[in-house]
Amino acid sequence: MAKVKIYVTLRESVLDPQGSAVQGSLAKMGYNEVTDVRIGKYLEVQIGDSERNIDELVKEMCEKLLTNTVIEDYRYEVEEAN
Amino acid sequence: MAKVKIYVTLRESVLDPQGSAVQGSLAKMGYNEVTDVRIGKYLEVQIGDSERNIDELVKEMCEKLLTNTVIEDYRYEVEEAN
Repeated sequence: MAKVKIYVTLRESVLDPQGSAVQGSLAKMGYNEVTDVRIGKYLEVQIGDSERNIDELVKEMCEKLLTNTVIEDYRYEVEEAN
Repeated sequence: MAKVKIYVTLRESVLDPQGSAVQGSLAKMGYNEVTDVRIGKYLEVQIGDSERNIDELVKEMCEKLLTNTVIEDYRYEVEEAN
């Protein structure tokens, strides 16, 4: 049993219109000190007992479904539970 | 100049249909060991020099715009840069 935290971010070179929109809104609200906003996804995945290596499993899921590796990067942390 | 990482998650008590859909897709792909998926947002915010306290600033932005505190929780980490 493990809890995996996955962070998916747009690659540096990819424009983030959602982030720009949020930055624009913050600026209109007076938060002019905010110079950049990038928005990604944060996933918490619970994984039960498995015969497979957890790193291998998580990487495979990320690459097949959870991220678009052409425009996104991901990183993850595994928290083992009992 | 600081980089702030903000994690926005749905409260425990709130249903996450997007997470359930992802879990269903993973199950169809054969990843039956995945027992739960919750999806949140991950924001990277660059903040320039400001007279205001950074914690106060980040909390205010989170509560006014970045999160819906009725259904979402947030936490953040401040990484100072030079």
